[in-house]
Amino acid sequence: MHIVITGAAGFLGSRLARQLLDQGVLTDRDGAQRTIERITLLDLAPPVGLDDPRVRTLAGDIADPATIAEAIGPDTDSIFHLAAVVSGQAEADFDLGMRVNLDATRHLLEQARSHGKRPVLVFTSSVAVFGGDLPPNVPDNMKAAPQSSYGTQKAMCELLINDYSRRGYVDGRVLRMPTISVRPGAPNQATSSFASGIIREPLNGQQAVCPVSGDTRMWLMSPNTAVHNLIHAHGLPEGELHAGRVLNLPGLSVRVSDMIDALEQVAGTEASERIVWREDEVISRIVRSWPGNFEATRARSLGFLADKDFAQIVRDYVRDYVRVAQQS
Amino acid sequence: MHIVITGAAGFLGSRLARQLLDQGVLTDRDGAQRTIERITLLDLAPPVGLDDPRVRTLAGDIADPATIAEAIGPDTDSIFHLAAVVSGQAEADFDLGMRVNLDATRHLLEQARSHGKRPVLVFTSSVAVFGGDLPPNVPDNMKAAPQSSYGTQKAMCELLINDYSRRGYVDGRVLRMPTISVRPGAPNQATSSFASGIIREPLNGQQAVCPVSGDTRMWLMSPNTAVHNLIHAHGLPEGELHAGRVLNLPGLSVRVSDMIDALEQVAGTEASERIVWREDEVISRIVRSWPGNFEATRARSLGFLADKDFAQIVRDYVRDYVRVAQQS
Repeated sequence: MHIVITGAAGFLGSRLARQLLDQGVLTDRDGAQRTIERITLLDLAPPVGLDDPRVRTLAGDIADPATIAEAIGPDTDSIFHLAAVVSGQAEADFDLGMRVNLDATRHLLEQARSHGKRPVLVFTSSVAVFGGDLPPNVPDNMKAAPQSSYGTQKAMCELLINDYSRRGYVDGRVLRMPTISVRPGAPNQATSSFASGIIREPLNGQQAVCPVSGDTRMWLMSPNTAVHNLIHAHGLPEGELHAGRVLNLPGLSVRVSDMIDALEQVAGTEASERIVWREDEVISRIVRSWPGNFEATRARSLGFLADKDFAQIVRDYVRDYVRVAQQS
Repeated sequence: MHIVITGAAGFLGSRLARQLLDQGVLTDRDGAQRTIERITLLDLAPPVGLDDPRVRTLAGDIADPATIAEAIGPDTDSIFHLAAVVSGQAEADFDLGMRVNLDATRHLLEQARSHGKRPVLVFTSSVAVFGGDLPPNVPDNMKAAPQSSYGTQKAMCELLINDYSRRGYVDGRVLRMPTISVRPGAPNQATSSFASGIIREPLNGQQAVCPVSGDTRMWLMSPNTAVHNLIHAHGLPEGELHAGRVLNLPGLSVRVSDMIDALEQVAGTEASERIVWREDEVISRIVRSWPGNFEATRARSLGFLADKDFAQIVRDYVRDYVRVAQQS
């Protein structure tokens, strides 16, 4: 089995790659466990730290059709398409967002179609496709009404992947991801970057600015659960997807103040006191346009998982990243 | 005021052009009545029968950026973008549909954006953006779930126009049109072509094939009401559009058998007996994926109109087209 991961140098992409290499096999849409022979990791910079004879790294611009053509060949069985310009950046640079978030996906779909092999395509969409007047618990049939260019581009990709799947060009599985928290590493230009920063920075002994009010409700998923769900999506039988390829994933609904309580529970007031409250109007407006809770009925019935407890997410983060960092 | 109409050689486009020339003025978004100085009519073939010094005709491929650049200049105040590859054709030729229904709209938006003037853009979308499991009366917040490439392309354009409007590049107004019936002229490749054919052909003394069963529910709008609503959309104050640019228009919900009853009421059994029932599986599947009734709460509150009576639509068609044809 040959797998392509785009955005592979990113946090989620590299974690997914490591998990796939560790397990060595992947459940296919027919239920069979297939041996992973090769994983192509594509990103702007070549992903590092994944030395493995099965890995092929490819550095290039995903919006360049030649790069996509090099990545996806007639032997490609499966694609995890995670590459994207994040929300804040897509809002600041409209043309860049259109090129990377929309045009690149279209090139990728055309390349996948050209080989006539109908590869499985797992795509990460986002709750940023929603906005406007919403019920507190969003049902699966709620319309997309993005209030950002990022959300718009993701919603357009969802439609494309659904139609390419309906026509038999690819076998798409689109996951509307909750905000992933806690992400390791540096802050990024995602509007939701603070949702990791307010936990990660205090745990590293640094100050963190919280740009939204404590009662802001977030819809979250831990990195572990996100990787689990990406792999689960790949193995779903196609027969279960006739009602549509786009799924609202289950998640954990918490207020920002609950997140900070959990931080305090795990690491004490010493940590939580490192948070500086400074509301940012733009971030606050966009984040408040994202719903804080979803029914996710269909995805739950298809076996996707949600985290149960934010304190557990914080403890996992400490185990995976903070202790390791302190040891090294 | 300078206006551009794309798809101007089409039935709706040419009727809209004639109406605008007749009234000579158009209500602008600020409520002012502005004199129409020029209308540019763009289509593959130059529109005929509209000899008027205010008219500029332009023949060209709407998917060619050079054509769009010629049509939309720095003096363009308003655009009615009606050009499209119809549903049956977009299903049969995916790449053509993508080029004309999606890429051309994007070129048009970029051209409109380039002049920095934020023109009003009225765009015709379709109930074909809906599909799947739907309630009998579709609410305004129902998700788009197109079951055809045409519906997919229209839904993508809606998202684009909404975001271009939100960013201040254009001032878009997107109308999800019911099926227009009764259209004059020849059958076309629209999946809904029969919805005019089963009335028009019998009135012309010809046989018509009905490819769906009599209990199929249709969501209809007459040509007169469609032109009225396109012009109404242009004059809406922008302040009323902050909840979103995409509107489900009100319409008339009728069963196919009701349509034929109305035909019989206007033109006798002589007419209705010219209908041959021959179910077409593909057409039937697609048409049944379109909902037969919509709440259209928001569009109604914004003053959009619906027809009340299909027999009246048939009588209007006879008055406008059949008698004229018999006299000439």
